Amino acid sequence: MCFVTDLTEGKTPLADRSPDELAAFLAAQKTAYDALQARGLKLDLTRGKPAPEQLDLSNALLTLPTSYKDADGVDVRNYGGLEGIREIREMFAELLWVEPSQIVAGGNASLVMMREVLTDLWLHGAVDGERPWGQEEKVTFICPVPGYDRHFTLLDWFGIDTVTVPMNADGPDMDEVERLAASDPSIKGIWIVPTYANPTGSVVTQEVAARLASMPTAAPDFKILWDNAYALHHLTQDEAKTADILGLCSAAGHPHRPIQFASTSKITFAGAGVAFLAASVENVGWYTKHLGAGAIGPDKVNQLRHVEFFGSADGVRQHMAKHRDILAPKFAAVLSVLEEKLGGLGVATWTDPTGGYFVSLDVVDGTAARVVQLAKDAGIALTPAGASFPGGNDPRDRNIRLAPSFPSLEAVRDTMEAVATCVLLAAAEHLSA
Amino acid sequence: MCFVTDLTEGKTPLADRSPDELAAFLAAQKTAYDALQARGLKLDLTRGKPAPEQLDLSNALLTLPTSYKDADGVDVRNYGGLEGIREIREMFAELLWVEPSQIVAGGNASLVMMREVLTDLWLHGAVDGERPWGQEEKVTFICPVPGYDRHFTLLDWFGIDTVTVPMNADGPDMDEVERLAASDPSIKGIWIVPTYANPTGSVVTQEVAARLASMPTAAPDFKILWDNAYALHHLTQDEAKTADILGLCSAAGHPHRPIQFASTSKITFAGAGVAFLAASVENVGWYTKHLGAGAIGPDKVNQLRHVEFFGSADGVRQHMAKHRDILAPKFAAVLSVLEEKLGGLGVATWTDPTGGYFVSLDVVDGTAARVVQLAKDAGIALTPAGASFPGGNDPRDRNIRLAPSFPSLEAVRDTMEAVATCVLLAAAEHLSA
Repeated sequence: MCFVTDLTEGKTPLADRSPDELAAFLAAQKTAYDALQARGLKLDLTRGKPAPEQLDLSNALLTLPTSYKDADGVDVRNYGGLEGIREIREMFAELLWVEPSQIVAGGNASLVMMREVLTDLWLHGAVDGERPWGQEEKVTFICPVPGYDRHFTLLDWFGIDTVTVPMNADGPDMDEVERLAASDPSIKGIWIVPTYANPTGSVVTQEVAARLASMPTAAPDFKILWDNAYALHHLTQDEAKTADILGLCSAAGHPHRPIQFASTSKITFAGAGVAFLAASVENVGWYTKHLGAGAIGPDKVNQLRHVEFFGSADGVRQHMAKHRDILAPKFAAVLSVLEEKLGGLGVATWTDPTGGYFVSLDVVDGTAARVVQLAKDAGIALTPAGASFPGGNDPRDRNIRLAPSFPSLEAVRDTMEAVATCVLLAAAEHLSA
Repeated sequence: MCFVTDLTEGKTPLADRSPDELAAFLAAQKTAYDALQARGLKLDLTRGKPAPEQLDLSNALLTLPTSYKDADGVDVRNYGGLEGIREIREMFAELLWVEPSQIVAGGNASLVMMREVLTDLWLHGAVDGERPWGQEEKVTFICPVPGYDRHFTLLDWFGIDTVTVPMNADGPDMDEVERLAASDPSIKGIWIVPTYANPTGSVVTQEVAARLASMPTAAPDFKILWDNAYALHHLTQDEAKTADILGLCSAAGHPHRPIQFASTSKITFAGAGVAFLAASVENVGWYTKHLGAGAIGPDKVNQLRHVEFFGSADGVRQHMAKHRDILAPKFAAVLSVLEEKLGGLGVATWTDPTGGYFVSLDVVDGTAARVVQLAKDAGIALTPAGASFPGGNDPRDRNIRLAPSFPSLEAVRDTMEAVATCVLLAAAEHLSA
């Protein structure tokens, strides 16, 4: 990933234009926006949902499994097997670079597993903790921003405070993370989307991961919630390898610090995939012990369905190449419109991700909410401004998350041209004010 | 259900026999037990799991659904729809005698929904509550006993205290329930398995349900957790209708008191069914609001799979008749062996359920643990004595839960004859001591 600069030749940045030039530009944008509104579009770029043609790639699942016994002869139709069936754990252990004993296969949502982990920490405490988090005076999480809105919502649901740090191209700002983690025992953890972060597309480097693994923390039970939702979701041939956070933490003497999450939600069916949790063997035992207080076992039929569908870890990788073929042109369209319409004007920067589901667009400070509102009034649904910040509060009001996966390629182009018009109008308004 | 008495003619109750007769009886039972041990059996009557031939009834699910759009045109493969798809909610609303707006269709386990409800109550409080339960000095649940061990385990996981009341043939001892609920504001709820209770097979009558619905409670947010796991699981043509607890509570001015749970775990696949929660519209909104903090939607593909498989609510009822054909002979075998071997001897009483998954056997006080140990030493796994009581503590050490669904009919007969031998030996030992 790189943060694109706007050095397109032949254009004068808005800020360098004379008042008259700016007035003319503003008038032109108003005209363009009026024309946009007149088109009566109805487009949606809000959520990172797979497109129907991506879901079609997995339609063979609808008539699987052909058997109802797993490789160990277990009848997957019946109760039991809290940790999930062996075959799918082995398959995704390979893909996530962990041992089968370090992985649990669950239901259809890794987000549910994240909530379970936080509930267990809240009510019962960590394997390396002194007491349940719910008995602490205060619990705080470090949140790299922009980040994933549902992570922040979940913290808020528990009453966990947040402190933000910048998400850079190589991961979170580690100087700041280290300072915070070392100084305050109420700081109990950090959210990380290590590979193709939501929404920046950043990939946490080996160096950043090693610092996360080894940094001293004031809380003995500091947790890295490592949401590897896009581990295999490459957009180019330059396939990022996620840092081995379990191995790094173990080597650094903090084996119980990381808990990794992943799922097939954006591999097979978004609503009917299989989710995974990977952690130290002790953490896995801790998780399944608490899980067992209120669960008998996951949907093993769906797990076997996925095992038959993929065949092997390589089958998963080959399947992901088909997703790339569908998604890459949509991301290319986003970037091409942004470059064409906004390049060189000094009104926006954006990311150029090599994987994941999002492009993160930073517009002129103080105009993101206006852009989203203008788009809405023209029939274009964008993720609410600030959604990528805890409490929906982007202090600079500049970040907009673009999610081009679901609409058709044509709709992505239309939408992005409309977005560009809104960005330009809002910028011109702002600079003219 | 009735509690069978042991008035078989021609047998003298053990307690009425002379010391010599008892000594001879004890010697005979020891011989029988030695012979039993010599058979080297390996049988298991521990858990209420469907048998493979019951699971086979639903194998058509393995190649469904044929479509991936529900009746509303929603692509069930994708994210969303926290409350579940409309068609399955309508189907089970009819079966559970509630309105579609009062029901949520979830994942593969109603137990998980119970844990979610308790978590929401614990962290956020009820719609009719004053504060989160976790902020109360103490929270206590009324537990009719014998009852379902996993209900008790779940309470224990939250640190919720229990107070037991007898489970009678018509439901919990209501004089005692009313007294407890009215007197102590820390008493926040009661577990009820209304139809074919686990393990007694009791059916909560309309009268008992009406008293539960209308009774004054010291806690304003008292909850009836109405686990209707066996709503449709009839063993005879005498099909019990579950009392309409939502309607009764609403009429009594306590609309938010009950939360009902059900699932297809013992209708289709035990590990891959669909679970349901039914409650007041406000409670449903409360539940889905909290659910939304950590979930995007249930497995809608599996819900549509079930819709296609059943076709209609009547399809579910017809399907249940096939389960009855498989299960009824196993229950008949249990009862016939108990009657033949234990009848008339004054050493046991047992239930004769018209539905559900269990027979509850009460042996001579102080001998249940001994019976289970004797059985174990002869290769017969029984549910641990006391499992149907909070903390595994049966104060009279007399209750044993028999679960005849999973083994073959022949194995059920063999197991029950072995169990009878162990009951008789333990009784003879006890009376001879």
